[in-house]
Amino acid sequence: MSEQMHESPVKVAVVQMDPQVGLENKAKNVQMTLDYINQAASNGAKLIVLPELCNTGYSFQTREEAFAHAEPVPNGKTVETWVAIANERNVYLVAGITELDGNYLYDSAVLIGPEGYIGKYRKAHLWYKEKLFFTPGDTGFPVFETKMGRIGLLICWDIWFPEVARILSMQGADIICSCNNWVWTPPPLFDETGKCMASYLTMTAAHSNNLFIAAANRVGEERGGKFLGCSLIAGNNGWPITGPASPEEETILYADINLVSSRQAPIWNELNDLIRDRRTDLYNEMLGYQLGKKLPR
Amino acid sequence: MSEQMHESPVKVAVVQMDPQVGLENKAKNVQMTLDYINQAASNGAKLIVLPELCNTGYSFQTREEAFAHAEPVPNGKTVETWVAIANERNVYLVAGITELDGNYLYDSAVLIGPEGYIGKYRKAHLWYKEKLFFTPGDTGFPVFETKMGRIGLLICWDIWFPEVARILSMQGADIICSCNNWVWTPPPLFDETGKCMASYLTMTAAHSNNLFIAAANRVGEERGGKFLGCSLIAGNNGWPITGPASPEEETILYADINLVSSRQAPIWNELNDLIRDRRTDLYNEMLGYQLGKKLPR
Repeated sequence: MSEQMHESPVKVAVVQMDPQVGLENKAKNVQMTLDYINQAASNGAKLIVLPELCNTGYSFQTREEAFAHAEPVPNGKTVETWVAIANERNVYLVAGITELDGNYLYDSAVLIGPEGYIGKYRKAHLWYKEKLFFTPGDTGFPVFETKMGRIGLLICWDIWFPEVARILSMQGADIICSCNNWVWTPPPLFDETGKCMASYLTMTAAHSNNLFIAAANRVGEERGGKFLGCSLIAGNNGWPITGPASPEEETILYADINLVSSRQAPIWNELNDLIRDRRTDLYNEMLGYQLGKKLPR
Repeated sequence: MSEQMHESPVKVAVVQMDPQVGLENKAKNVQMTLDYINQAASNGAKLIVLPELCNTGYSFQTREEAFAHAEPVPNGKTVETWVAIANERNVYLVAGITELDGNYLYDSAVLIGPEGYIGKYRKAHLWYKEKLFFTPGDTGFPVFETKMGRIGLLICWDIWFPEVARILSMQGADIICSCNNWVWTPPPLFDETGKCMASYLTMTAAHSNNLFIAAANRVGEERGGKFLGCSLIAGNNGWPITGPASPEEETILYADINLVSSRQAPIWNELNDLIRDRRTDLYNEMLGYQLGKKLPR
């Protein structure tokens, strides 16, 4: 494939920030997202990824508090603010948001472009106390066409389920924008390279699915919980293009990526294509367990 | 769960060896497996994992040559030899073998115990020139009950398909014995910790599926191809218990493992169980692509 067939590279940015839960902090959190979006846009970023629940912080204590933080998507003030800046700065944004839909709360991510609100994803796999506040997502795993390429979304604990990146890949995603609040996992938290298990889950998902993953995690502490940082952008060969970022500091990471180059590379050899090589005829066991077959444990 | 509910730990060994292709080498390769099995057994190993195609070497040049190396399973000389030593040394063996079945060749792995031949797995996902010699496996992804616990098998390129470890896990595998001839992948081959992408695919598959993986790879060069070593045993938290081994040297790695401890650990928190958390209701997209839905790429 000649270079002329490619789109131009776009600068992708992942924002590692420290929002704080509490109604008194919500406006500050949103302002912080705007500051980082402006900074990234001024540095040339065209696709900017922010962490999970970045407008509200994470650690709700009661259902009442969680509901009080939430707002409709797309018809809420935070999304309207993000739509305005995406238009003004001519950028695409992916950001996590606490979504209110009647009596339902969702841990959601939105995709917004210069042209306005594009779509949302509601987190399918809920982590720990999220289960006390949120409803498991009902959107499936959508992939959105944009002028840059196809964008899939996932949120945090989702990456522990290899099904998610696989399903996004099977729909042709060129890049997964991954919004995270990575926290504790069974020790060790980090290895000698500064990576956590979530770093490796991100890398291997990118590698096994021939796509890019831009993973923004938050940092900081909140009500006794500590977040892991470690944001990264993985190439479609799986290795980090940039990152992991520090476990402590707010920062922005950048990478110049031809999103649609994921459609040709990596070339393994003249006989293998990883996606074509899938043995869907043998995956019936998995299909069985999807359809309710009893587990031996 | 109290410790009394556990089986005793067993010593698991992975053998990193250098077999060589060529009919004149086959008896030497099998003798080498016996030497390593004896050494591991003398060091207390009860479950010994050998590399892919360890009785024949890997790099066949013609179909005629591949057929000439192959033999029936279990009614062939190599398996008979392995059955004898497993009985004599009171150990379980997993080893890769070039299998002949009429006009079909398979890249297979056998599980053999003190009681004799237990079963086989035929590699589902064929790598590169294997496609010129072997038939893609037709055994599905079997899990075998043993006195130590449940054992699943996979071979090399299989680990690039997250479906495989997931399906083995869904059938209750406590450990996956992974027989490999890992070779080139898109660069970089290794990172600063001496791990290759196959190391990380092994680690994240163990982590995401709450099971142990004992991965034996070969070393050495053969007809211009170089193998990566890097054998490891991953805990059910994903991190290596031992390894990665060197990319060059023959060696044996050992780990003491309660196989059935994978049925309780890791405990994430009181609300999450990774397998229970699977959103099989949302995995219909994957199911669709298993049933032949057209890919966008």
